[in-house]
Amino acid sequence: MAMETPNHTQTVAGWAAHSSSGKIVPYTFKRRENGVNDVTIKVMYCGICHTDLHHVKNDWGITMYPVVPGHEITGVITKVGNNVKNFKVGDRVGVGCLAASCLECEFCKSSQENYCDQIQFTYNGIFWDGSVTYGGYSQMLVADHRYVVRVPDNLPMDAAAPLLCAGITVFSPMKDSQLLESPGKKVGIVGLGGLGHVAVKMAKAFGHHVTVISTSPSKEKEAKQRLGADDFIVSTNTEQMQRGKRTLDVILDTVSAKHSLGPILELLKVNGTLVVVGAPDKPIDLPSFPLIFGKRAVKGSMTGGMKETQEMMDVCGKHNITCDIEVIKPDQINEALDRLSKNDVRYRFVIDIAGRSKL
Amino acid sequence: MAMETPNHTQTVAGWAAHSSSGKIVPYTFKRRENGVNDVTIKVMYCGICHTDLHHVKNDWGITMYPVVPGHEITGVITKVGNNVKNFKVGDRVGVGCLAASCLECEFCKSSQENYCDQIQFTYNGIFWDGSVTYGGYSQMLVADHRYVVRVPDNLPMDAAAPLLCAGITVFSPMKDSQLLESPGKKVGIVGLGGLGHVAVKMAKAFGHHVTVISTSPSKEKEAKQRLGADDFIVSTNTEQMQRGKRTLDVILDTVSAKHSLGPILELLKVNGTLVVVGAPDKPIDLPSFPLIFGKRAVKGSMTGGMKETQEMMDVCGKHNITCDIEVIKPDQINEALDRLSKNDVRYRFVIDIAGRSKL
Repeated sequence: MAMETPNHTQTVAGWAAHSSSGKIVPYTFKRRENGVNDVTIKVMYCGICHTDLHHVKNDWGITMYPVVPGHEITGVITKVGNNVKNFKVGDRVGVGCLAASCLECEFCKSSQENYCDQIQFTYNGIFWDGSVTYGGYSQMLVADHRYVVRVPDNLPMDAAAPLLCAGITVFSPMKDSQLLESPGKKVGIVGLGGLGHVAVKMAKAFGHHVTVISTSPSKEKEAKQRLGADDFIVSTNTEQMQRGKRTLDVILDTVSAKHSLGPILELLKVNGTLVVVGAPDKPIDLPSFPLIFGKRAVKGSMTGGMKETQEMMDVCGKHNITCDIEVIKPDQINEALDRLSKNDVRYRFVIDIAGRSKL
Repeated sequence: MAMETPNHTQTVAGWAAHSSSGKIVPYTFKRRENGVNDVTIKVMYCGICHTDLHHVKNDWGITMYPVVPGHEITGVITKVGNNVKNFKVGDRVGVGCLAASCLECEFCKSSQENYCDQIQFTYNGIFWDGSVTYGGYSQMLVADHRYVVRVPDNLPMDAAAPLLCAGITVFSPMKDSQLLESPGKKVGIVGLGGLGHVAVKMAKAFGHHVTVISTSPSKEKEAKQRLGADDFIVSTNTEQMQRGKRTLDVILDTVSAKHSLGPILELLKVNGTLVVVGAPDKPIDLPSFPLIFGKRAVKGSMTGGMKETQEMMDVCGKHNITCDIEVIKPDQINEALDRLSKNDVRYRFVIDIAGRSKL
């Protein structure tokens, strides 16, 4: 436990859930001293990811309470370790999902740390010193510099925070599908939430024709006028789905609720790829016919490596892409989690951590 | 209906199911005259594919009775149309799943006719003249020459017959996964049936390390000693499955019964691909975690294009690959279908069509 790890001497004010009720309450805990490879970060903002909701409620049965959630963190560096050459005090930085990995496997060596099988997450993970990791719902963070990225100067720290998870989660499969270098593709985005809305912005910035696929007809106007989508398909409208058959090159499915992939796969051209980036806790229904008749692929993708995450931040800086957010105070976290569970947010809650009590 | 199509004047003896009881009985019907692009084939052998079972029982709700099944056909050409330059009377040929396609789309033009959206199958399809297609459970076939391939001289006509469906079905994804030109990969084959056993032979011939994954421990000896597999994992043995994690580059899943892909996906390395070539009639359970945590892909593949089918036949000729078969007489078809439904065959039934009544 973190409290018992010898060099965990720094007292931090944060917010934690203590049981599967998921209720978040103020929580004071200890973090490690700033080590030679560490940076200490004054947390300014932290996005609320759907994963946070799963963890506080122990939906996946893996939560170690008390859990301090948060892996969409922006802040300012207040301390750097002796081995840290690439950051200095005052730098605007971000921390995403990763807290540690083995540093030695082929994935770590090729900056695909996210696929290292020793990966440890920013919260509810076990750090190298054996301590449980605590996330960004807290006023201060100590992070190994290898898992920290820079936030471009032109991006606001609040609207940039969700890029650290939502942003990289959709950027990585786009890069993997060659969408960064070959414009003019037909790209489908399933679900217009925290991930989906930033996926639309990125795909448009990279020069693609973007179709949003959603169960909510009411989102059409916003998808097109505000986010710049070219087309909109209501997934429950069989006529629209029929018309859309075999039209898309790549689909990003950002929906984390259980759903059938069959009708959505039919929208793909032959040889097209659907990337699952949401993480439904129940198995997805995958009918074999649309898969085999169209030589289609369903692929998984989980966040991104650190080099790729920095690239994503820089690309977002260049195209001025941020998330559409609703900023809340820490005492509104429970309300926000409740609204998030009903998908009642456009499109991401971000906690104004530093606004409440200036450190 | 075929009987009413004007130029369908040739009387053929065959075997058909007339209802979803699936019972096969002798059936006399008409085929078209040999057109300018057609070849007439004296059918010698026809394999019994799992798809035949689904069709005779109308499992997919699409059967047009009476149905004459069979799409693993070998025989000898007895007539050629005026436009046919690549075949002559006496040629040993094979016909697989395809009877017609649009000939004009990008897939037809690149010999991926199997993905043409106007594709029509060798039986239970609608040919260009509006007639219902009848398959290889019959003594004579008229086929457009563009959907006919040659059988290499060194391959026996009976054991070559299942190559026309089972063979191409596993060959195509192997080619697509670059397994033909880059030996030394770790290949997994799920299910050791009609498709699986020929997949093992091909993967070994192409120089790969082959692991068979099966629910039946009893198949290990045969998989290794007879078919040449290097390794064998019992999918219900958690220790073996655990040890196999992240070891395979490509998996071909040939199982057509409903099953969860989760544990099998875990056997793939990061970025690995599982190709679904069986066609479960119920949706496959696809848990998102092994998919996203390993950046893995589940891909579909359906038979192959005609050029690829000829390549497969030639490759099988070169490596002397055929199917392990059990030859039956036409009056044993019902018994064979019954045994097939219980997976009681090693590994493919082939009907000796010409043996019964020499045309």
